[in-house]
Amino acid sequence: MDNSKNSAHRAAVDRLRNKQRFLSGNDLAQALMAGDIRALAEAITLVESSRADHQKQAEELINTVMPHRHKSFRLGLTGVPGVGKSTFIEAFGQHLLSMGHKLAVLAIDPSSQRSKGSILGDKTRMETLSQSEGVFIRPSPSADSLGGVARKTRESIILCEAAGFDYIIVETVGVGQSEVEVKSMVDFFLLLMLAGAGDELQGIKRGIMEMADGLAITKVDGQNGTLAKQAQRNYKNALHLLPQNENGWITEVMLCSALQGDGFKEIYDHLRSFEERMTANGFFDGNRMEQSLHWMKQTIANQLQDRFNSHPEVQLQMPILAEQVKSAALSPFRAARLLLEKFFA
Amino acid sequence: MDNSKNSAHRAAVDRLRNKQRFLSGNDLAQALMAGDIRALAEAITLVESSRADHQKQAEELINTVMPHRHKSFRLGLTGVPGVGKSTFIEAFGQHLLSMGHKLAVLAIDPSSQRSKGSILGDKTRMETLSQSEGVFIRPSPSADSLGGVARKTRESIILCEAAGFDYIIVETVGVGQSEVEVKSMVDFFLLLMLAGAGDELQGIKRGIMEMADGLAITKVDGQNGTLAKQAQRNYKNALHLLPQNENGWITEVMLCSALQGDGFKEIYDHLRSFEERMTANGFFDGNRMEQSLHWMKQTIANQLQDRFNSHPEVQLQMPILAEQVKSAALSPFRAARLLLEKFFA
Repeated sequence: MDNSKNSAHRAAVDRLRNKQRFLSGNDLAQALMAGDIRALAEAITLVESSRADHQKQAEELINTVMPHRHKSFRLGLTGVPGVGKSTFIEAFGQHLLSMGHKLAVLAIDPSSQRSKGSILGDKTRMETLSQSEGVFIRPSPSADSLGGVARKTRESIILCEAAGFDYIIVETVGVGQSEVEVKSMVDFFLLLMLAGAGDELQGIKRGIMEMADGLAITKVDGQNGTLAKQAQRNYKNALHLLPQNENGWITEVMLCSALQGDGFKEIYDHLRSFEERMTANGFFDGNRMEQSLHWMKQTIANQLQDRFNSHPEVQLQMPILAEQVKSAALSPFRAARLLLEKFFA
Repeated sequence: MDNSKNSAHRAAVDRLRNKQRFLSGNDLAQALMAGDIRALAEAITLVESSRADHQKQAEELINTVMPHRHKSFRLGLTGVPGVGKSTFIEAFGQHLLSMGHKLAVLAIDPSSQRSKGSILGDKTRMETLSQSEGVFIRPSPSADSLGGVARKTRESIILCEAAGFDYIIVETVGVGQSEVEVKSMVDFFLLLMLAGAGDELQGIKRGIMEMADGLAITKVDGQNGTLAKQAQRNYKNALHLLPQNENGWITEVMLCSALQGDGFKEIYDHLRSFEERMTANGFFDGNRMEQSLHWMKQTIANQLQDRFNSHPEVQLQMPILAEQVKSAALSPFRAARLLLEKFFA
């Protein structure tokens, strides 16, 4: 196992920039499946590239390694900036390593292009974890659309599993639309919350709470302890009044403190118990199967939409017609038909 | 105003079945804008027809009447079977009429094809209301896909507004995916709930509660009264713990009883106050504009998907590839690419 993930990643990016050749397809697949972390970084860079020949190689690679993936648990993690996602991953990751897991952390941040890249962009984040054996951390790819980022993350999950990582954390910011996408690619969706007078919900988008399979209140230490336990009671009551999960799972509210190292074993055990029960009742595999079909359909929908949006006539007409629709001078249905005619002409 | 809506609808359907000609485009538009309810029924039948020439006429008609719509309030209504949606509409509708509104009720029921048509299929539903002046009630169109039903409902809303109806209720069953669609076509989304030990949430899908702009507990009469007030308190507390609406609106929990005629004035006033505040802060018009753009984009996405799904090669290959994806023998991304190649060949 190679420790120099950052330099491996940088080297892969450099090779891409310098138009140096990647490892040939078969060599790359073999190296990846042997757990070579440089090969994994290179494979993900291939996935993230928008060049047509890279895309083709990436597809070939994924199809080759698909059947050789390790059994894994995919954890989606969300929460507003400041809730302590990196600190959570740092502490929870140590527990995962102590339990013998190999951990891959992938990030989805639709805003990373516009902003300075708040997610995983900061080199000081997860410092201990990123130096550890058996850990692979990958910042968010910069893609034009959220759909693009989501697709690349899905492909990266498969690559990580083929490289022997059996615990995948997909991190997202919790303020955008990315949660729906993340929910569709993980086994368990965990929402991190702050405890504190009125701070709990600041910035969390409506709809995310009902999407979560579990809540964890972070920073439960010092004076925060009493507040956190009160918040835990309140949320338990509130969640009890929300409709049940289809799989029969009861959404719990957990507590943790990275400062004191408290709660991470309990969260891990909770996720294990989820995995065991959902495997026993068939939901785990059924859900994965549904998700794979969803990925196929979503990829088709995204590509149809991309082809449509990049059509020269559509690009020309769309903004004009959109303005007319907004001012109610044109019906949305006629605007759609006019654009579709350009596309299929 | 013509009272015989059912017979008007039946006549329109008969004419369609017998391939009799519709009123010519301009006559139909004129009759519709004059508030002729037979013309409205005929126009909606045109919208719901899958024949290409009817679709073309429908589009022409909608584009003609678009600028002549009356200012309206669009109310989405959902709740599980048994919550009393018809009874609610019957009682609330009477209040709307007494306030001088003209009411159109449209239904979205994605299950109506498979089941016996639970929504608006029963002739005894809303008996008094359906006999009243200034009321138009239309059962759910049977379309192949939910997307199709939703599109037809969107077009029907425009036709109703052009015919002078200024209060549009869009009813849905509250157990399926249709709520997301309904939310995207209304100004206010109201969730009806039962009060009673544990019955409140039976059958309500997760995610719907956070989507609602308001809750109303029905059947608050007799012994139910105490239970209902307890449920109201609980839900108020729970909603307080959910993230806020983006428009700053606080989701309230209201009570009503069709039996005693209680609560409908309050609900109406509540909706009025919503309309006033959202008009003042610009959200009302902004939201309508966003929705129109969403309808345009959704129509494009649906049609791209329809064209794709009806491609002979895709129809042939899709089930085979889907099976391989489910068994993980084929990557979802390669399956998507193979199908897209067939389509764009």
